[in-house]
Amino acid sequence: MSTKPSLFLIPNLLGDVEVDTSLPRSVVEQVKTLRHFIVEDVRTTRRFLRRLDKSFPIDESTFGVLDRHTEAKDIPSLLQPLRKGHDMGVISEAGCPCVADPGADVVRVAHEEGFRVVPLVGPSSIILAQMASGLNGQSFAFVGYLPVEKDERRLAIRRLETRACTERQTQLFIETPYRNRRMFDDLLQACRRDTRLCIACDLTTEHEVVRTMSIADWKRRGCEELTDWDRRPTLFGLL
Amino acid sequence: MSTKPSLFLIPNLLGDVEVDTSLPRSVVEQVKTLRHFIVEDVRTTRRFLRRLDKSFPIDESTFGVLDRHTEAKDIPSLLQPLRKGHDMGVISEAGCPCVADPGADVVRVAHEEGFRVVPLVGPSSIILAQMASGLNGQSFAFVGYLPVEKDERRLAIRRLETRACTERQTQLFIETPYRNRRMFDDLLQACRRDTRLCIACDLTTEHEVVRTMSIADWKRRGCEELTDWDRRPTLFGLL
Repeated sequence: MSTKPSLFLIPNLLGDVEVDTSLPRSVVEQVKTLRHFIVEDVRTTRRFLRRLDKSFPIDESTFGVLDRHTEAKDIPSLLQPLRKGHDMGVISEAGCPCVADPGADVVRVAHEEGFRVVPLVGPSSIILAQMASGLNGQSFAFVGYLPVEKDERRLAIRRLETRACTERQTQLFIETPYRNRRMFDDLLQACRRDTRLCIACDLTTEHEVVRTMSIADWKRRGCEELTDWDRRPTLFGLL
Repeated sequence: MSTKPSLFLIPNLLGDVEVDTSLPRSVVEQVKTLRHFIVEDVRTTRRFLRRLDKSFPIDESTFGVLDRHTEAKDIPSLLQPLRKGHDMGVISEAGCPCVADPGADVVRVAHEEGFRVVPLVGPSSIILAQMASGLNGQSFAFVGYLPVEKDERRLAIRRLETRACTERQTQLFIETPYRNRRMFDDLLQACRRDTRLCIACDLTTEHEVVRTMSIADWKRRGCEELTDWDRRPTLFGLL
């Protein structure tokens, strides 16, 4: 093992769940050794660290902020503790850092400077949705958010459906929870009857629901099963 | 929570590592309650179950085999225990089931029959490689294996590079370990100098290496750092 300082990528919980449901013990132990973090939100990260360990020395820890407002020129300075010989951790708001968040930018700099980058095991809503979808897992893509504007969004849905169909590549995407129902309506209108749609909702929590049906079946059965859906983090998958 | 029987998707370890490095405690506890499994290889699965619990009642458990030789017509019968009211587990040879393996076919049938499908948290070499690559995590695709034949393979590499470049979508793929070095040579020949290549090797083990550089830098530095590379499971990423 290298003695060079390392940048650890630390998965966060996907909701209000017990730590033991989602993080291996040695991941928790690794996090407890760190005192320098790069995070999206300092307040929620402090809460997360206290969940891992009630006596985590938060006041002895440093927090650099990397969110969607961070400018590219400010990213290299976030790694200053690493250059001074300290291990660091990157923590996202939910799930795995550097997936569907701005974290990759700081990892890129770490690689350029030759630091060791260590990804830790934890929950990723994308991989959990892919697993449970029953859609092709030999080829799949995650494409983030679709456009909000109606016509652009329909066009994006049709493009994804075409790629799913011609390449047999599962297409996964997300939506802001309060727009879930609108996304559902748009998918039902834009997609072909035999396209399969997976909806994976509130993964790892007690409200978790994963359901895959053809568009025709979704039209017939509706989304009534998904109670309080407009407040629940959701992944959509097409094939 | 539903009392309907559930199909649990159980991640396996990625190599010879301690269980606590890769699986949350409650995942292990969940697996210990199950007696009916769908697996790729019965022998290695028995070994895995004994690692989770030395006294796991393997002789009281049933194992259906789902591998690349399984015919489509034989898949529905694998779920027979579920229809009789028993929870079941799907276990892959390494990492998350239904990702880069045939597991999705049985999950599809479970959805068609309305059973609950529950993905459990554990290591996925794909998501770990994506996290640690520093390549775009807002849009990425996993495409499995590339063709083995030389010309087809170069063409596939160029197509992936074009998509990575035009869509800013990270392209991830795998290779059989003994062909890793050949893949490396093909990538260096086929790709543009400024394309970034991530090599993620033996993830979660003590031999883990993740390195991202431009093709130009890989040409200059070589892959000497990757010792015994021809025996190590490896993910490749392009952007």
